[in-house]
Amino acid sequence: MGPAPVIDPATVGTLLERVQERSPLVHCVINSVVINVAANTLLAVGAAPAMVDVPGEAAPFAGVADGLLINLGTPSGEQRQAMREAVAGAQEAGTPWVLDPVAVGSLPVRTPLAHELVALRPDVVRGNPSEVLALAGSGSGGRGVDAADDVDSALPAARELAARTGGVVTVSGPVDAVTDGERVVRVGGGHVLLTRVTGGGCALGALVAAFVGVADDAFSGTVAALATYAVAAETSAATASGPGSFAVGLLDALAGLRPDEVAGRAQVREA
Amino acid sequence: MGPAPVIDPATVGTLLERVQERSPLVHCVINSVVINVAANTLLAVGAAPAMVDVPGEAAPFAGVADGLLINLGTPSGEQRQAMREAVAGAQEAGTPWVLDPVAVGSLPVRTPLAHELVALRPDVVRGNPSEVLALAGSGSGGRGVDAADDVDSALPAARELAARTGGVVTVSGPVDAVTDGERVVRVGGGHVLLTRVTGGGCALGALVAAFVGVADDAFSGTVAALATYAVAAETSAATASGPGSFAVGLLDALAGLRPDEVAGRAQVREA
Amino acid sequence: MGPAPVIDPATVGTLLERVQERSPLVHCVINSVVINVAANTLLAVGAAPAMVDVPGEAAPFAGVADGLLINLGTPSGEQRQAMREAVAGAQEAGTPWVLDPVAVGSLPVRTPLAHELVALRPDVVRGNPSEVLALAGSGSGGRGVDAADDVDSALPAARELAARTGGVVTVSGPVDAVTDGERVVRVGGGHVLLTRVTGGGCALGALVAAFVGVADDAFSGTVAALATYAVAAETSAATASGPGSFAVGLLDALAGLRPDEVAGRAQVREA
Repeated sequence: MGPAPVIDPATVGTLLERVQERSPLVHCVINSVVINVAANTLLAVGAAPAMVDVPGEAAPFAGVADGLLINLGTPSGEQRQAMREAVAGAQEAGTPWVLDPVAVGSLPVRTPLAHELVALRPDVVRGNPSEVLALAGSGSGGRGVDAADDVDSALPAARELAARTGGVVTVSGPVDAVTDGERVVRVGGGHVLLTRVTGGGCALGALVAAFVGVADDAFSGTVAALATYAVAAETSAATASGPGSFAVGLLDALAGLRPDEVAGRAQVREA
Repeated sequence: MGPAPVIDPATVGTLLERVQERSPLVHCVINSVVINVAANTLLAVGAAPAMVDVPGEAAPFAGVADGLLINLGTPSGEQRQAMREAVAGAQEAGTPWVLDPVAVGSLPVRTPLAHELVALRPDVVRGNPSEVLALAGSGSGGRGVDAADDVDSALPAARELAARTGGVVTVSGPVDAVTDGERVVRVGGGHVLLTRVTGGGCALGALVAAFVGVADDAFSGTVAALATYAVAAETSAATASGPGSFAVGLLDALAGLRPDEVAGRAQVREA
Repeated sequence: MGPAPVIDPATVGTLLERVQERSPLVHCVINSVVINVAANTLLAVGAAPAMVDVPGEAAPFAGVADGLLINLGTPSGEQRQAMREAVAGAQEAGTPWVLDPVAVGSLPVRTPLAHELVALRPDVVRGNPSEVLALAGSGSGGRGVDAADDVDSALPAARELAARTGGVVTVSGPVDAVTDGERVVRVGGGHVLLTRVTGGGCALGALVAAFVGVADDAFSGTVAALATYAVAAETSAATASGPGSFAVGLLDALAGLRPDEVAGRAQVREA
């Protein structure tokens, strides 16, 4: 991947429009907690979800998909095998793929698997600070889903990880950071209610796969997905009464987004 | 199954009332994406869901259930075994069963499994045009969840399939078609938002199993389930702000349906 | 566990406040139908959910969690192994654990597993009347998810079961009963809509694990969880249009509960 072009709010609008027009087919191997939310998030934005996670089907499907998400949240034995097959199929066909290393650090099944997958050079790694630190080898481990470490303290690890994969790494937080190892783009907005519903991060991973599937480069696709999600979260939060209605409204908001509106509201700036 | 009696909107109301009164026990072996939605759909209409999908339990449970749904969406190894056991248990006990062959066509695990299950003569096959074409041996395959083929072009395949199983086959679309190989009943209504939420079709498969579980014949039960669902979808769409609120309102609408209202609004006509 | 102290509505408020302040980490091995609902329920009340259900990870995670839930709803082979490992890890670390024996009675995989787990002396068993009767060896079996037996008729079995485990047993119904084998506390309130959404009971099991994780004793923690859930259900039901909006509003209500409000509204009395 060469140097990415300028990424600004207009880019976000352009890529959302492309998702809506092309309806990218997004293959997800994802945990059972959020599998429904991720599928609905993809449908809401206009993409086509397919949760193909059995061995024997994952490789050919990844080959015809526009984007692939590998999410390590509940990695059963069959899912682990399907993940490996899906990545192989994606690599053979040139399908871009996203790794969401949920809760890696000290858990003894997913952590070595995440390292194995990182070595296969995912186009995007989407994690919270503690996950990115763990993947880069500098993590503290912690209590699994912990995201206590902050974005800035994880940024050197993210850069190092991106340099290793040759792809893009995101670090989620109140303001997300996205880096390809050299450049850093910050994506603001969103809402704290995203941390009070399960799938707030995991569904975003699916959205990243959709946008990267239509983008010219993984960097701009990733930023556009994060910024679109943040705008939709703000729209939903404006009328939500709590996490339940927020999650419902988030799907409504994603489905109702106009590209020009997103271009006007996206909080994207290069650091 | 002999020739089905006249099926009209009044039949739909009668069968909805029967579901509400008898609360049929519906056994589902169903994919992890929509398992929650399907259970809630059954509860909303007054049925009793039971998602028993481990080998060793599926056969005896299918034997005591009023209806069984086999949905091939995420067919793990254990689920595939449970499916076979459940069908055997259903056949021994005379429990009617529904096959939802999600995304069959080219996927190499579920496609031969679907053909194997079709040979066991399901009472109902519920599919979209491309799935019905694939099962009848005339499908184009395609990108998995693709439903691009239209209802009319899949109707000959549906008739052929129904003749082979001795059961009923549905083809979903803007106007659904239901056939037993000879007669064709069309079910209209519904709403395009059903295609923007995951489980729009899969949850309907569970509803078909509930209605067939109380109906005098599979044909009228299938038509009544489709028509009831379509009416509820219209009710929900009338006030929905998008796919998130539509899905929530669909459960509210299903729970609030009165049989006479459904009889008055159901769009059912024999072709 | 020695005799529990007085449990009254004030206790409920105190423990809700403690959950909100400490955000207990709750490890769940739970069925695929309600895994999302349970995670969202925990997040709504301020706890931190972690659905770690693969063999090899369950024991160490249970060791660092504040509470553990074992729910037998869809017990795949890997989940059964993870359950055993999780309980071993919890016991070694002193993590309190809750058993939700979904649909035990006649189903041939989960029923012996439930008996095996009961012998390991869970801190809490949360069941409906038929499940408690089945576990105590006096059950009628029945149609799986059947809860037709009433609370009072299951109370002797609950006492006997609690005496055997040395823990607490709840029997759910219009008014729940909680016993440690000697004392019985009744928890009223709630709403019938809880029986029209999937996860109404299973998510409560997760909430019990959260409260027991911060309580001084399992008895008061269990009662506080049940009473908090009942108050939130009443709040949601007051504006719900059906089961769909009720489930959404239940999360909103749980997230919005103030400890003093719960203390004022909780219906808790010792029999």
